[in-house]
Amino acid sequence: MEKIIDISLPIDEKTVVYPGNPKVNIKTIYGKTSTYSEIKFGSHTATHIDVPKHVFKKGFGVDKIDLKKVIGECRVFDMTRVKESIKVEDLEKENIKKGERILVKTKNSLLGFKKFYDNYIYLDGDAAEFLAQKKISLFGIDYFSVKKRGGKDTRPHTELLKNGIVIFEGLDLSKAKAGKYFFIGLPLKFTNLDGSPARVILLKT
Amino acid sequence: MEKIIDISLPIDEKTVVYPGNPKVNIKTIYGKTSTYSEIKFGSHTATHIDVPKHVFKKGFGVDKIDLKKVIGECRVFDMTRVKESIKVEDLEKENIKKGERILVKTKNSLLGFKKFYDNYIYLDGDAAEFLAQKKISLFGIDYFSVKKRGGKDTRPHTELLKNGIVIFEGLDLSKAKAGKYFFIGLPLKFTNLDGSPARVILLKT
Repeated sequence: MEKIIDISLPIDEKTVVYPGNPKVNIKTIYGKTSTYSEIKFGSHTATHIDVPKHVFKKGFGVDKIDLKKVIGECRVFDMTRVKESIKVEDLEKENIKKGERILVKTKNSLLGFKKFYDNYIYLDGDAAEFLAQKKISLFGIDYFSVKKRGGKDTRPHTELLKNGIVIFEGLDLSKAKAGKYFFIGLPLKFTNLDGSPARVILLKT
Repeated sequence: MEKIIDISLPIDEKTVVYPGNPKVNIKTIYGKTSTYSEIKFGSHTATHIDVPKHVFKKGFGVDKIDLKKVIGECRVFDMTRVKESIKVEDLEKENIKKGERILVKTKNSLLGFKKFYDNYIYLDGDAAEFLAQKKISLFGIDYFSVKKRGGKDTRPHTELLKNGIVIFEGLDLSKAKAGKYFFIGLPLKFTNLDGSPARVILLKT
C-alpha cells in the first residue's frame, strides 16, 4: 500500500484552540470490564472543516458535505517562504485548475502547534477571490483559521464557502513535502453543524 | 469516481447511545461574523472504533491505530437472516483470509438506529475466537456493541482487540449490499483514548 502521512493534529487537553473557542476537556471512566470517556470540545478544534453554516446562518451543515470533494487528488504547495499571508501572486504561478484540492504549507507548519500566536500566515482576501474564481473544490491551511486574527476582511471564509469550496484548517503539513497526493479528509457526521473536527491523511504512491 | 456509500450514523441530540454512555449535547453559539458549537459526547457514540484500551487498561489508545488497517478492501457479509448472534457456522462458509476487513450486515441495519433495543444481533464469543485465529485486521458490526447486552462472555471485545483487530461498531449497513468494497474508516486523533467516533464510508467501483 501507499505511504500514509497523517496530517491531523492530536486532540487532548493540551490541544491549542483558537481564542474564544471551547477548550478540550476529557474525562475517562474506568469500569469493571470496559472504559469509556466523556469528551467536550468545540466544532473547530484541532484539524477541522469549516462549512457554509460557519459564516452564513442559513448555510448548509457539515453533514451535507459532498464527500467526493474531500476524497481525491490534491496538491501541496510549498509556501514556507511567504510572509504575512498567501497572496494572489503566490497562487498565480501554480497553474491552478478547476476542481483542484489545494493545500498550502507555510511556516506555520514549521513553527508547530503547541502555542497559539497571532501572526500566523493566513489567506489574503483577494487570494480567496482568486481561488473562488478558479473554482477549486477544497482549500486547506496549516493553522487554525484561514482568516487574519481580528481581521475585518471576511472574504477568506465567505468567498470560499459561498462558492462551494470546503475549507480545512489546522492541518499539520510539517511532514508533507510539496507535491501531489491522494487526499482523504473525513469530518464526523454532525447534523447541521457549522463544522467538525476531522481526520485527514495524505496517501503518497 | 466510485460511488460513495456513507455507512456512518448522524450525530446530534437525538442520537441513540448505548445505555450508561453519555448523551450527546450540542450548543451552537451564533456570533456576529461566525458560528461555532460546543459538543459533549462519549468516545463510543454513534459509528465508532473500539481500541485495546477500551477493555485492557494498559492497551493502546485510538491515536495509535495503524491507519493501514482502516483503509483498504473489505467484504460485507449478508447475515440478515441470522438470529440472536453471529456464530462460527455463519463465518466458516465465507472462506475468510488473513488480513481481511470483515463487516457483517445483520437485521440490526434493517431495524434502524432510532431506538435502543436489547436483543440486537451480536458476535458470539466462539465466533470472535474464530476471527482472531483467522487473523483478520478489522471487524465491523451494525449495532452499538459487538457483545451481547449484559453478557458475561467478554471475548467479542477481548479476543479481537488482543489480537490487533480493529473493531467498528454502529455501522449503518442498510444501504450496502453484500460484496466487496474499498473501506475508509477514520477516527479522530484523540490522544490515548479508549475509542473514538469515526466517519466510515465504502467506495464501490
